Amino acid sequence: MPKDPRILFGKRLAALRKERGWSQEQLALESGLARSYLGGVERGQRNIALLNIVRLAETLGRKPAELMMDL
Amino acid sequence: MPKDPRILFGKRLAALRKERGWSQEQLALESGLARSYLGGVERGQRNIALLNIVRLAETLGRKPAELMMDL
Repeated sequence: MPKDPRILFGKRLAALRKERGWSQEQLALESGLARSYLGGVERGQRNIALLNIVRLAETLGRKPAELMMDL
Repeated sequence: MPKDPRILFGKRLAALRKERGWSQEQLALESGLARSYLGGVERGQRNIALLNIVRLAETLGRKPAELMMDL
């Protein structure tokens, strides 16, 4: 692992969220996940599990694999 | 979600493990994860988190996104 996968995932998530033109608050509302949790994921502080990865991907209109592209 | 992502992920993991010609026991030894845990993941009973997805992908010589292809 050249870089912590949690950091890479967080950066990718933030990039896709911004492409969509959404704030963390909007992504939280749309996904039903807490904004504080999303903030932790985007900062690479959380080891997000499969079901939440899929939930965020669906909310953003992406395939789960697209969220893992940079890893 | 048409089908439980845990089930789809488990099937994909089992398929890639078999392509490699490995038993669950071998994948457990190579990855350092418990065989009982891997069995649960392959049966779709566990909500595997990012760091273990990356660990299994690296052990199998795949990109993490390849493990998410069917989701």
